[in-house]
Amino acid sequence: MKNEKFSVTPFTVTTGPLPASRKIYVNGVAMREIALSGGEPPLAVYDTSGAYTDPATKIDIYKGLPKLRDKWIRERGDVEEYPGRVVKPEDNGLKKDSGFGIRDSGVPVFPNVVQNPLRAKKGKSVTQLTYARAGIITKEMEYIATRENEGRTVKPESAKLKPYQRGESFGAKIPQIITPEFVRDEIAKGRAIIPANINHPEAEPMIIGRNFKVKINANIGNSAVTSSVAEEVEKMVWAIRWGADNVMDLSTGRNIHNIREWIIRNSPVPIGTVPIYQALEKVGGIAEELTWEVYRDTLIEQCEQGVDYFTIHAGVRLPFIPMTEFRKTGIVSRGGSIMAKWCMSHHKESFLYTNFEEICEIMRAYDVSFSLGDGLRPGSIHDANDEAQFAELKTLGELTKIAWKHDCQVMIEGPGHVPMHLIKENMDKQLEYCHEAPFYTLGPLTTDIAPGYDHITSGIGAAMIGWFGTSMLCYVTPKEHLGLPDRDDVKVGVVTYKIAAHAADLAKGHPSAHMRDDALSKARFDFRWQDQFNLSLDPETAKDFHDETLPADGAKVAHFCSMCGPKFCSMKISQDVRDFAQGERDKGMKEMAEKFKESGGEIYQKVAV
Amino acid sequence: MKNEKFSVTPFTVTTGPLPASRKIYVNGVAMREIALSGGEPPLAVYDTSGAYTDPATKIDIYKGLPKLRDKWIRERGDVEEYPGRVVKPEDNGLKKDSGFGIRDSGVPVFPNVVQNPLRAKKGKSVTQLTYARAGIITKEMEYIATRENEGRTVKPESAKLKPYQRGESFGAKIPQIITPEFVRDEIAKGRAIIPANINHPEAEPMIIGRNFKVKINANIGNSAVTSSVAEEVEKMVWAIRWGADNVMDLSTGRNIHNIREWIIRNSPVPIGTVPIYQALEKVGGIAEELTWEVYRDTLIEQCEQGVDYFTIHAGVRLPFIPMTEFRKTGIVSRGGSIMAKWCMSHHKESFLYTNFEEICEIMRAYDVSFSLGDGLRPGSIHDANDEAQFAELKTLGELTKIAWKHDCQVMIEGPGHVPMHLIKENMDKQLEYCHEAPFYTLGPLTTDIAPGYDHITSGIGAAMIGWFGTSMLCYVTPKEHLGLPDRDDVKVGVVTYKIAAHAADLAKGHPSAHMRDDALSKARFDFRWQDQFNLSLDPETAKDFHDETLPADGAKVAHFCSMCGPKFCSMKISQDVRDFAQGERDKGMKEMAEKFKESGGEIYQKVAV
Repeated sequence: MKNEKFSVTPFTVTTGPLPASRKIYVNGVAMREIALSGGEPPLAVYDTSGAYTDPATKIDIYKGLPKLRDKWIRERGDVEEYPGRVVKPEDNGLKKDSGFGIRDSGVPVFPNVVQNPLRAKKGKSVTQLTYARAGIITKEMEYIATRENEGRTVKPESAKLKPYQRGESFGAKIPQIITPEFVRDEIAKGRAIIPANINHPEAEPMIIGRNFKVKINANIGNSAVTSSVAEEVEKMVWAIRWGADNVMDLSTGRNIHNIREWIIRNSPVPIGTVPIYQALEKVGGIAEELTWEVYRDTLIEQCEQGVDYFTIHAGVRLPFIPMTEFRKTGIVSRGGSIMAKWCMSHHKESFLYTNFEEICEIMRAYDVSFSLGDGLRPGSIHDANDEAQFAELKTLGELTKIAWKHDCQVMIEGPGHVPMHLIKENMDKQLEYCHEAPFYTLGPLTTDIAPGYDHITSGIGAAMIGWFGTSMLCYVTPKEHLGLPDRDDVKVGVVTYKIAAHAADLAKGHPSAHMRDDALSKARFDFRWQDQFNLSLDPETAKDFHDETLPADGAKVAHFCSMCGPKFCSMKISQDVRDFAQGERDKGMKEMAEKFKESGGEIYQKVAV
Repeated sequence: MKNEKFSVTPFTVTTGPLPASRKIYVNGVAMREIALSGGEPPLAVYDTSGAYTDPATKIDIYKGLPKLRDKWIRERGDVEEYPGRVVKPEDNGLKKDSGFGIRDSGVPVFPNVVQNPLRAKKGKSVTQLTYARAGIITKEMEYIATRENEGRTVKPESAKLKPYQRGESFGAKIPQIITPEFVRDEIAKGRAIIPANINHPEAEPMIIGRNFKVKINANIGNSAVTSSVAEEVEKMVWAIRWGADNVMDLSTGRNIHNIREWIIRNSPVPIGTVPIYQALEKVGGIAEELTWEVYRDTLIEQCEQGVDYFTIHAGVRLPFIPMTEFRKTGIVSRGGSIMAKWCMSHHKESFLYTNFEEICEIMRAYDVSFSLGDGLRPGSIHDANDEAQFAELKTLGELTKIAWKHDCQVMIEGPGHVPMHLIKENMDKQLEYCHEAPFYTLGPLTTDIAPGYDHITSGIGAAMIGWFGTSMLCYVTPKEHLGLPDRDDVKVGVVTYKIAAHAADLAKGHPSAHMRDDALSKARFDFRWQDQFNLSLDPETAKDFHDETLPADGAKVAHFCSMCGPKFCSMKISQDVRDFAQGERDKGMKEMAEKFKESGGEIYQKVAV
């Protein structure tokens, strides 16, 4: 890759800690610690926000984040630097003869672009799956074990767990304490993945699997209609601030290559893409003109940049296309319909399917994970769980085995629009057909009738399928079906999906999930208002809503709230209950003692016959 | 009740139809008909909004709505007018010696107040349950049958139903077409109720039961902190505009009596209250000073005004109170904690429990339905499904039998905060303990950690418990735990709960539920943007969101959207699939035909041995 000098219009991203929070490092793993009042111990929570919330780190988006994993990757001795592919005008949606190289008027080249990418040395396999199968616990696995424990080191006595803590896991087996060996074993079995391209050393390792915390993905990306690098980088930083574990860049307009470089170099979370989107741009948006060569070249381009996982719709096979004929909404996946169009036009099997083994070879050389796309997912309640959908899912299961044969990490994408009573079948079939590879679903939306509120229609389905065993939930924003999400939509989408993922963790019985609920509810009961805000997923909104009714600072320490007013408060009365219960016990003890005295003080009473 | 003359500050409420909608009357039952383009037939949907969305009706909030049921009630010949109770200053939270009668500076008396309320003639029972048990199909039951069918008259062939239409009903049995006799039978069995006080003839009959559409309730009401009659009446009109089937007036401040009169006289939906709130105001907010006499008098006051159902926390018994001692959040129900406080102070059994039969007698005389309150519901994930909660639920089951003995209609209130894996147990136990009386739940919230988003944390639980068999879902707004909902919060709460109720109907296999999803998805696939907006639960928001990205009017008829842009569109490609599939079939037919010719044209082929 060449570095060309351009002046960059200055822009900034959102930085600084969340309220009452500070960044702590446990075994080098970043976590967020929320300070509490009233003598309560602080609570450590999983932190996706990277250095942006750490005032001790200087953020320079023109330079990119520190390369946390660089040393780990190089020390393994199985990678090599190489000159890499020369960036072409069409990578940014420019005409071949534009003479502009990688530059475009709208988006400057990232100033600190990687000069020479890494790839596996000849004959070497550098995926986390390779290491796991060889019994090697990588630094990434160690990092993840600490991260998933969220500061917990002591195993609770499982015999003493209450029903609300035990959960119902539908076959998932989350240990009380995650060990590096457990991480390795889950990776080796294909039940979890660590999306971690060797060319994205800035990313903090994270895991996607049924026996770990449920993760969420946020989509960003420009479109043919709108485009700005500042906006997209900020959207990424904004999404991870509120808890996005992964970010997919779904850009479809111009400057795709350059925008992606800015995003990856500044992203502490794995970045996913759908390479067919860029490939389509390269052939002027005409699906029929796609070729395996253009696609293959795009894969390499993105592997070198550091994309961590690719959505690949290799399951949209020619014979499945007619199965969608009587659907209410046909093929709604963009990638799926591109491939369907190509297959129909050429009357040929999908080049993604026929070249799948070569795709594996390419992705293995960089440890890019597969996200096998559900190109035939239902786009309406009417089309849920139909023949086309499950035919594709079965194919994704076959492709999983092929990818595993090549040491590639795999997750499987899922729907879509599904009424509640058909959700579990999706999970069950996925586990069966895809050999327990992690499931990654979009929602599902549980009804079609609420455009403008599809974060909610889908949040319902997401919570449920997360509970049933889905490992990562792809967010849906309020703008779904209607337009492109702005900053507010991204936040609402992320918070909604954090709710879904957390509700799922609770219901699965994830050992640390209930700790935050317990801490927040205790704060609520104690009228520690600030603690309640600070423990919530969105402290700012919680505080703003409170202040709308009772803006005085005094109200935030008052032992009442706006619902009942100062004169009467249900929480306060509940405290009386404790005294009452103690009184009842004391009385009971006294009566017992008196009876004991009356009976002459003998411990064992004679039985009346 | 006396009518005193006051000048009323003019105020208005929101009126006018929703986009592309008109009010139609089927057998006298109001429905909303949504007009569609592209040659599609219009869709009739359930309509809770009353005359406010009918331009043909003149709205006069100073006069109140027309008294639809007045004739029906009087024709049955079992009611009588009587002077009724004299309204006292303390009914509006004024001091006994204020000399103001029923007036207060803030809230004027409703100008068209009912002079003489109705009650059952001596020896008569006027509840819908009485009639149902006697085999009488009332006008209310006829109205409901038509209403629940939403214009459907033809039974679909159940053998041809697809899986997405069939649902999983967990024992509910919703017929394809609801008949008046079916309504009567469900009422007679206690499986459904029609909240319909004989003094609220303005209400359009509706039913709450597991074998009908899932309903939603919206809470409004002033508090000690804020109060305005204009605001509260508008909140009611606003809530039903977006789909609230019932409204509860939870006012706790002054002027409770007067505000309630304005609300009831202008409400086409049943109104519920928690009488203990007003009783507490009457004794200066001091729970210990409550007496059976004050409470009894309050019941009669509200029966005469026309409240359709009362939340009565008669299950909060003295022996259950100590069971809440080790809870994280004690007793969070306001009514529950008032009663707990009273029981503890007097060390006596609850006067609601000891006087329950007399309460039944009072409520029967007006056909006010019981909503047996869950005063010991869990206020946190930690406290879900505990001993206290289920001890109370069992008691509610016992009280249900007593109320039924007195011919009273009953529903049962449910939680609260419950993690997903413990939700179904709530439904199962409720059905078992409470003999299939309808369940009416608040959420439940599936996690505690998202104040500011509790419409979503609870919308997840509401959809699930609605699917499992809950008959009515009490909404939760974004302000829950933080403050009092404003107009926007009410709308978001109602729409979220319409989503939950509809998702539940779909999953239960309610015969008409999928029709709106199908119509909307077809509109989406056909790029009929306006139809998509008009069919949605909130057409305005859907249109606004669309216009933010693509404001041009041309974009609303364009065959593309902002997500993919004009060059490429997945929906468009899907249309090609139909031609392709037809082509494949034609080719197949042609090949078959050629083979047939080759074989000599014989229909039966010889088998090669």
